[in-house]
Amino acid sequence: MAVAFSPRLRPHTAFRFFAQSLLPTATTLSKSILPKPRLCFSSAHHSSPLPRRRCYCTLISSAGEGIKPPEIVDSGSKVGLFRKRLKIADIKGGPDQGLDRLGHTLLVRGWVRTIRMQSSVTFIEVNDGSCLSNMQCVVSSDAEGYHQVEAGCISTGASILVHGIIVGSPGSKQKVELKVNKIVMIGESDSSFPIQKKRVSREFLRTKAHLRPRTNTFGAVARVRNALAYATHKFFQENGFVWISNPIITASDCEGAGEQFCVTTLIPTSPEAMDSSAGKIPKTDEGLIDWSQDFFGKPAFLTVSGQLNAETYATALSDVYTFGPTFRAENSNTSRHLAEFWMIEPELAFADLNDDMACATAYLQYVVRHILENCKEDMDFFNTWVEKDIINRLNDVAVKDFEQLTYTDAVNILLKANKKFEYPVKWGYDLQSEHERYITEEAFGGCPEIKAFYMRQNDDGKTVAAMDLLVPRVAAATPVPRMVSFPPAIGFVPPPAPDYFPVLGETPAG
Amino acid sequence: MAVAFSPRLRPHTAFRFFAQSLLPTATTLSKSILPKPRLCFSSAHHSSPLPRRRCYCTLISSAGEGIKPPEIVDSGSKVGLFRKRLKIADIKGGPDQGLDRLGHTLLVRGWVRTIRMQSSVTFIEVNDGSCLSNMQCVVSSDAEGYHQVEAGCISTGASILVHGIIVGSPGSKQKVELKVNKIVMIGESDSSFPIQKKRVSREFLRTKAHLRPRTNTFGAVARVRNALAYATHKFFQENGFVWISNPIITASDCEGAGEQFCVTTLIPTSPEAMDSSAGKIPKTDEGLIDWSQDFFGKPAFLTVSGQLNAETYATALSDVYTFGPTFRAENSNTSRHLAEFWMIEPELAFADLNDDMACATAYLQYVVRHILENCKEDMDFFNTWVEKDIINRLNDVAVKDFEQLTYTDAVNILLKANKKFEYPVKWGYDLQSEHERYITEEAFGGCPEIKAFYMRQNDDGKTVAAMDLLVPRVAAATPVPRMVSFPPAIGFVPPPAPDYFPVLGETPAG
Repeated sequence: MAVAFSPRLRPHTAFRFFAQSLLPTATTLSKSILPKPRLCFSSAHHSSPLPRRRCYCTLISSAGEGIKPPEIVDSGSKVGLFRKRLKIADIKGGPDQGLDRLGHTLLVRGWVRTIRMQSSVTFIEVNDGSCLSNMQCVVSSDAEGYHQVEAGCISTGASILVHGIIVGSPGSKQKVELKVNKIVMIGESDSSFPIQKKRVSREFLRTKAHLRPRTNTFGAVARVRNALAYATHKFFQENGFVWISNPIITASDCEGAGEQFCVTTLIPTSPEAMDSSAGKIPKTDEGLIDWSQDFFGKPAFLTVSGQLNAETYATALSDVYTFGPTFRAENSNTSRHLAEFWMIEPELAFADLNDDMACATAYLQYVVRHILENCKEDMDFFNTWVEKDIINRLNDVAVKDFEQLTYTDAVNILLKANKKFEYPVKWGYDLQSEHERYITEEAFGGCPEIKAFYMRQNDDGKTVAAMDLLVPRVAAATPVPRMVSFPPAIGFVPPPAPDYFPVLGETPAG
Repeated sequence: MAVAFSPRLRPHTAFRFFAQSLLPTATTLSKSILPKPRLCFSSAHHSSPLPRRRCYCTLISSAGEGIKPPEIVDSGSKVGLFRKRLKIADIKGGPDQGLDRLGHTLLVRGWVRTIRMQSSVTFIEVNDGSCLSNMQCVVSSDAEGYHQVEAGCISTGASILVHGIIVGSPGSKQKVELKVNKIVMIGESDSSFPIQKKRVSREFLRTKAHLRPRTNTFGAVARVRNALAYATHKFFQENGFVWISNPIITASDCEGAGEQFCVTTLIPTSPEAMDSSAGKIPKTDEGLIDWSQDFFGKPAFLTVSGQLNAETYATALSDVYTFGPTFRAENSNTSRHLAEFWMIEPELAFADLNDDMACATAYLQYVVRHILENCKEDMDFFNTWVEKDIINRLNDVAVKDFEQLTYTDAVNILLKANKKFEYPVKWGYDLQSEHERYITEEAFGGCPEIKAFYMRQNDDGKTVAAMDLLVPRVAAATPVPRMVSFPPAIGFVPPPAPDYFPVLGETPAG
């Protein structure tokens, strides 16, 4: 414990800002089209708890309200005024999908998805990542910079600025489009750009990792994942929890179960690492690794759980949570066993198993509701292309009551099941994935309900109390993560004594 | 790049819930005093962007509104209803510091800070970590459980439940106190509890790391740190940024500057690590370390920066940020060089240096304003006991315009300074800490203004543009972190080409 809190290991926050700097030159960019930065701390903005770009298709974006369309003025140089630009999500997510802004000027900054040249006009679909939807930009030959269209410079993957006026669209796919006055090339592309308008496999995209965020799927996953992370913080903050950043490098092995990665500087660091001589590793006279010469003077590892640290804060601040990366050196490449993953570990003080279950349920319903309300377009995309019916199932999760099931009842259901399991079913044995799947997907009719388990809490108060929260069929195929691994915890006795630490193992003792 | 995005390394989110389980037994706890869990998703609650416990002394807590004082009922067993308990911050942070709740019943769960026995009554100061303030609990001999007070069981460090009625306090330190009906011991303590009512050094607390969150200082730091982290997410989310969780274990060396920690399973993991034979490390025939037998089949390291990953998302989603742990194996134990720290790396697409500076400034003012508004009691504590005048200086940061200063002007100021510097001052040389301190603290009169630097951006558009944001005297002594290390970035050209990567180094090329 002391080591985990040593000052050297203690996390600290630093800040760093980078800009994808846009270097204006006479040939590529006239400064005159950059909008003036606007103060972003209006009271109207402050009062909205909703992030602006998550609102598409469901809510009026807070960013769009009270803010005029960008004017054609010099980029302001006054520090302190942070830009407030309209993005495509602000237009298309607005009232009536942008029809309220007819006649307004708009500067779209983004990446060309497709370009279609017709006899009189050219259609350029531009995406700025603020939402799944593109802005259809209609370019006539009188638009400034049209020669770049003619020359074929503006192709899929190019980054451009497009300035124009919002007009009604005769097309059926969108209500508004951009009638282009001026088009400015920022970064060219060519026909070798690997993400063209066709479906590509995820295996292929894995080889183009630097470009796959520009696909519909990865863009949507990034936005939904972001919404889930923010909703996680919102839920716990609104319920009075304090976020704890437990040390990532640690000398404690919190669970004793997971294999740990060693963190060391005994092995020379990059780029020399590849051809390091094994003989250079410092040794003691007995031929053992000389840890005193390592960075921390002793073996150090990546954390497998922040629980121990969170507990010390929970017994001082009442309710806390961790949300940070966690590591297991388990060589099993499944969705349940990752080497690196972000884990949420709430610790509730003065709580019982009912509080624990209530917290887990309330949390899950909160974040599911959050993405259903704020990521509608992205979720519709998943519903159509990735996992049919996911929205209905998540809707059920968000509103239905959760089933509770004791370990004993679960075992009884499995014993009565007319099904052959790979692993034996017996009271006292662990429930395996196949058992949990049977219970959630078959025993309860495959309907999208949720079952909470808890283990028996003996009358003597000494045996473990724990619970798992299982969501049928939501786990692997969607961006909504599965809740896993709820080891039991027992009561705490301050000041810490040996029995302060949680009993480990998921098999009931009785 | 491909390695940094390999699926094995890709972060994933899992969830875990723990409860500090309260095991009710007949002798220590009657179930009857537990309050009924309440649904926490009222619309009134939703509409408040403020976390409830941060509001102390400045705002009416959202949690307290519309919620009756706890009744004496059984703990509800219905999953889905998450408890909504009143904490001390909700009472003392309410209108008129709790006078609006006179006559209400309240259940305080917390830890004894001090106990004073007088002839007729006993005063117990209980802290629940929701705020710095304790609740003064006044116990007469007719209170249920008073025998534990008489027996001396209830001492500093003990965890207790105290049930009573809120009454006006004749004391000058608080407006209300708790007239106790019933007191329940949860966890005993004794006179060996190391944190008694006296000032202790931080060096001493370092040896009691598991208990130091119960001190005023560490509790306040944890609450303010939590508020800063949440305000960070709020700022970027409200401004349309997408949070990116870059891989922590990586094979790329993003900056090329910082020393990296090696992450390996070639060295046996805990607890065998301490006496591992150096000879057991897998070797090739040439005596080199056989990386093919390591977990990832090649050398892997802890990330020194998420910039590279964030850039791939910024060139798809426009504006993104990372906020996660970062590591440097630099053996220098200063506030500017930590082995592990949390770093924020915003990436702005289609931005110039003015946008970059505006974002950094707006961010800093936002989070400073957030803690001044929401952590008033904790900040008052720092102002009195840790860093005199910190609130005034932070107020200036929150409202004043920032000074801008070019690198050339900064060098000229230093050349004219009537002061001997350890490091030479010359155009083209790095600015050292002593130079930055002189400029912020002396050249500008030591007044609490902020100066932003930026380097020369040559007309050819090829040399670097970057900036540092310096806050005089705020850096080390307070929980407000210093902004450090703003390496320059240049424009991007999709698809990525060699010049896509940022030019490194902080010395201007011209």
